[in-house]
Amino acid sequence: MRVAILAHEKFPDRAKTALGVLRYTDDDVVAVLDRDSAGQRVNDFVPDVQDAPIREGMADLAADDVDTLLIGIAPIGGGFDESWREDVRTALEYGCDVVSGLHYFLAEDEEIAALAAENDCEIRDVRKPPEDLTVSQGVAGEVDAEIILTVGTDCSVGKMTVSMELARDAREAGHDAAVIPTGQTGIMIEGWGNPIDRVVSDFTAGAVEEMILEKGDEHDYLFVEGQGSIVHPAYSAVTCGILHGSMADKLVLCHDAGRKEIHGYESFSLPDLSTYVDLYEGLAAPVADSEVVAGALNTSSLDDDDAAREAVDAYASALDVPASDAIRFGTDDLLAELL
Amino acid sequence: MRVAILAHEKFPDRAKTALGVLRYTDDDVVAVLDRDSAGQRVNDFVPDVQDAPIREGMADLAADDVDTLLIGIAPIGGGFDESWREDVRTALEYGCDVVSGLHYFLAEDEEIAALAAENDCEIRDVRKPPEDLTVSQGVAGEVDAEIILTVGTDCSVGKMTVSMELARDAREAGHDAAVIPTGQTGIMIEGWGNPIDRVVSDFTAGAVEEMILEKGDEHDYLFVEGQGSIVHPAYSAVTCGILHGSMADKLVLCHDAGRKEIHGYESFSLPDLSTYVDLYEGLAAPVADSEVVAGALNTSSLDDDDAAREAVDAYASALDVPASDAIRFGTDDLLAELL
Repeated sequence: MRVAILAHEKFPDRAKTALGVLRYTDDDVVAVLDRDSAGQRVNDFVPDVQDAPIREGMADLAADDVDTLLIGIAPIGGGFDESWREDVRTALEYGCDVVSGLHYFLAEDEEIAALAAENDCEIRDVRKPPEDLTVSQGVAGEVDAEIILTVGTDCSVGKMTVSMELARDAREAGHDAAVIPTGQTGIMIEGWGNPIDRVVSDFTAGAVEEMILEKGDEHDYLFVEGQGSIVHPAYSAVTCGILHGSMADKLVLCHDAGRKEIHGYESFSLPDLSTYVDLYEGLAAPVADSEVVAGALNTSSLDDDDAAREAVDAYASALDVPASDAIRFGTDDLLAELL
Repeated sequence: MRVAILAHEKFPDRAKTALGVLRYTDDDVVAVLDRDSAGQRVNDFVPDVQDAPIREGMADLAADDVDTLLIGIAPIGGGFDESWREDVRTALEYGCDVVSGLHYFLAEDEEIAALAAENDCEIRDVRKPPEDLTVSQGVAGEVDAEIILTVGTDCSVGKMTVSMELARDAREAGHDAAVIPTGQTGIMIEGWGNPIDRVVSDFTAGAVEEMILEKGDEHDYLFVEGQGSIVHPAYSAVTCGILHGSMADKLVLCHDAGRKEIHGYESFSLPDLSTYVDLYEGLAAPVADSEVVAGALNTSSLDDDDAAREAVDAYASALDVPASDAIRFGTDDLLAELL
């Protein structure tokens, strides 16, 4: 599939979804759309992901060169920016499908829905949960697969990335591993999954369990994409539901080097790492024996490799488990503990 | 307002909502509808709540004698039982409003909606969250009121009842206290509130915060109705969101005497009481200084008052805080600690 990724005015630093897709998709990215950086290339900004030209808009692509337009940014609140409408319109006139993770559902937009019908295109709102979700039965632990969940000290510390890196490297090492996607980017990359942050709160754990029951006897390892943090003032409910719904065997604690306060909620300091370990393990314990067995540190804020290595070593020693920056230093040390 | 409460085949033991309304509503209950117990009275089964005759159906009441039909039972899954339709139809033909906490929204039922419009009746689906909820800002702690949250060792241990008893008794003692209702029964009794178990999971904390911000500067004490339990395999997400969203000053730990396993999930044993205290306080700590300062034990399973008193004393001593059964022994000991 040939994909264009819309990331106007936000690529790369504020385009988490675009970047995740560029890093992990098996599809062919034919262009990133960003009117601020048009004319440059993805690799001018980010070296270690799939390269693609950056273009002004869909009209700069030929209709024959692209199959799907993917919305690769998500403003706070998840609304649709009207400045993107022309690109969506053009994509549909080209006959492209449109994939979006916005809270604003494109399939319910009158003009977009009509154009999609007219041109026989599919609109996939990946943030829209399926209708048939329900409460957890508390049985995810019964599947054959070993369940490995990424948990975090905060939002945006790399849980999705670590889950993807671990699953990919485990597969490359010959293991049968799959990802359980729980957020929009993971769902776009994997092509399936439940958007856990958008389900009815009573069904949070159940929506995770349902995916694990579906895949759990087909694979040896399931890497569950975690969300938020268990002490996040706004999002802890989602984290807690994933923890209990997944009944994980092993936890990988993800952290961003240098993060001291909760992102966007800076009046709240992050507690000690040992507090996170105690809370995640203690909260899981009545439901499942989940243990923090590895740590993943995002050192992208550190330019110097030696400083990054030192930070990882300090993180490993604080947690008393193997640790790595999965992107910078690879996953060998983590997988040795996990598989 | 004159209310009829539908509780067919389930009154009183499996009619938690009907019983809660009978115990706490200021409205005049003119009848409970239960075809299994028609001809008897509420007080034949439950002595300490508002009395009312039990009738076969709405047709046994005169149109002039009733203003509202309230659905007082909620089957697992929250569906609408077709055997209730005749009563709803009659109520609407009488010109009554209908209040329901079912997951099945009556206002979206074609026949019911048409009849309501025709007879100028209002349908209130209290389980339907408002459209404008959003994520928490983490500021509930800034309101003037002292925030007191009931937390539990499991579902159905009496959190709603304890919140109502405490608020009522505090008011009777001359304090300015209000309830923050988070579930269908609380919402029906209070006439407002957000059904937290039904909101988008990302908005769980935000939906609690929104209510606290609305009421927090109007009262001295807010008693927040808790839900579920922090170690519940299915519902912990809701509990966690309420804990962080409310930023409670004080917690009242509610428990059912003799409960050993999670209700409906009997393969999971309840952890020790001290584990609950550590988890609730530890999880809250990075967001708010919430402390378990009182315990509420539901001793309704014990016939003997002496045994109940012993159980309460043992509970208080295990928690090392004052405790009571709010229904059986009153709330004096609890309020002395809370106000």
